Amino acid sequence: MPKIVDHDERKQHIAEAVVQVIARVGFDRMTMRELAAELGYAHGAVVRYFPNKQALLTASFLNLYNRADERIRCAVEGRRGFDALEAMCREILPLGTNGRMAARVVLAFWARASQDDEILAVHFENNKRWRELMHTCLLQAREDGMIREDIDIDIATAELAARNAGWQMQACLMADVTPDAVIEEALMRHIDSLRKRRASRTVGQ
Amino acid sequence: MPKIVDHDERKQHIAEAVVQVIARVGFDRMTMRELAAELGYAHGAVVRYFPNKQALLTASFLNLYNRADERIRCAVEGRRGFDALEAMCREILPLGTNGRMAARVVLAFWARASQDDEILAVHFENNKRWRELMHTCLLQAREDGMIREDIDIDIATAELAARNAGWQMQACLMADVTPDAVIEEALMRHIDSLRKRRASRTVGQ
Repeated sequence: MPKIVDHDERKQHIAEAVVQVIARVGFDRMTMRELAAELGYAHGAVVRYFPNKQALLTASFLNLYNRADERIRCAVEGRRGFDALEAMCREILPLGTNGRMAARVVLAFWARASQDDEILAVHFENNKRWRELMHTCLLQAREDGMIREDIDIDIATAELAARNAGWQMQACLMADVTPDAVIEEALMRHIDSLRKRRASRTVGQ
Repeated sequence: MPKIVDHDERKQHIAEAVVQVIARVGFDRMTMRELAAELGYAHGAVVRYFPNKQALLTASFLNLYNRADERIRCAVEGRRGFDALEAMCREILPLGTNGRMAARVVLAFWARASQDDEILAVHFENNKRWRELMHTCLLQAREDGMIREDIDIDIATAELAARNAGWQMQACLMADVTPDAVIEEALMRHIDSLRKRRASRTVGQ
């Protein structure tokens, strides 16, 4: 009987494995041939799914994005407001070995997205969905009376999106001064800066 | 008499001009030959100074960095604390047409730096000097009693570095939702979040 190949599974496998190869050798230096050899596929088997390195990078980014998306969905389950926001940001921020490995793919992908309108559109839609979720969390914090009254929720959402992005760069390019503890402490302090002060609540009571 | 070529000037000219070419056609698509043609140089004249595209990208980034550095030095002259910090961040953030053009070079450079230890070291040193200046501004704000007492100055410096980086990405890849007004408003609000509250000052008096 001929071997039955699950094409979706194989495609997924390649898109996942390429993250480690990009993190190790860098996107520019990675060759399709090496990648195929590393995965134990024939060169043609990889090219069949991904005609070039750019297609591989996009697939790899979307794979990371979708996995983060699933983790976020689990993490925010049953949470709202700042609790949900913190849980979400922890899944996006480049924490741990996996987070740092992903950040290298993210940086390569950004450079690519800045040069290709189609890739840019893919990135825009994904990023926008995360912004919408952060926006929802901030609105919940407002409903629950947890957020400072002078916070502009649109600006606060954009700020969160910017800082989540900026820490990817810091984890990758300023690794020596960016241990996990700094990323986590900065997140806690940033969210705290949005919270209504205990003091002013006491005054209001 | 033979024409005397000022090599430093020519090198500088190429490094400056390449910013516009990268912003327009993208780093991956840019060829050394096109660039030379656009600048009115022979191909060999460009290759003499910059043996490959990577060298050009690094030179172009350093050129942008040095120019921002000069602007920052002028902007902070005679200022201290939050005033100096705001002036500095305005020079780094991707504001205006030039800022957005520069952000495309920055994104290409980051991807490159994440894959090359030598380039990474160049980036690290430059970025660290800016961090030191931000740190100094925050210390001045502390000396002047302007900063909230619970602010951790090291974490606040890292946060500023991260958000300055993140807005480069946002201006480039989320341009439609990132007009200058949002970047500026977010900066003002971020700096405000570090300031000692009027209310608590009254209480202390």
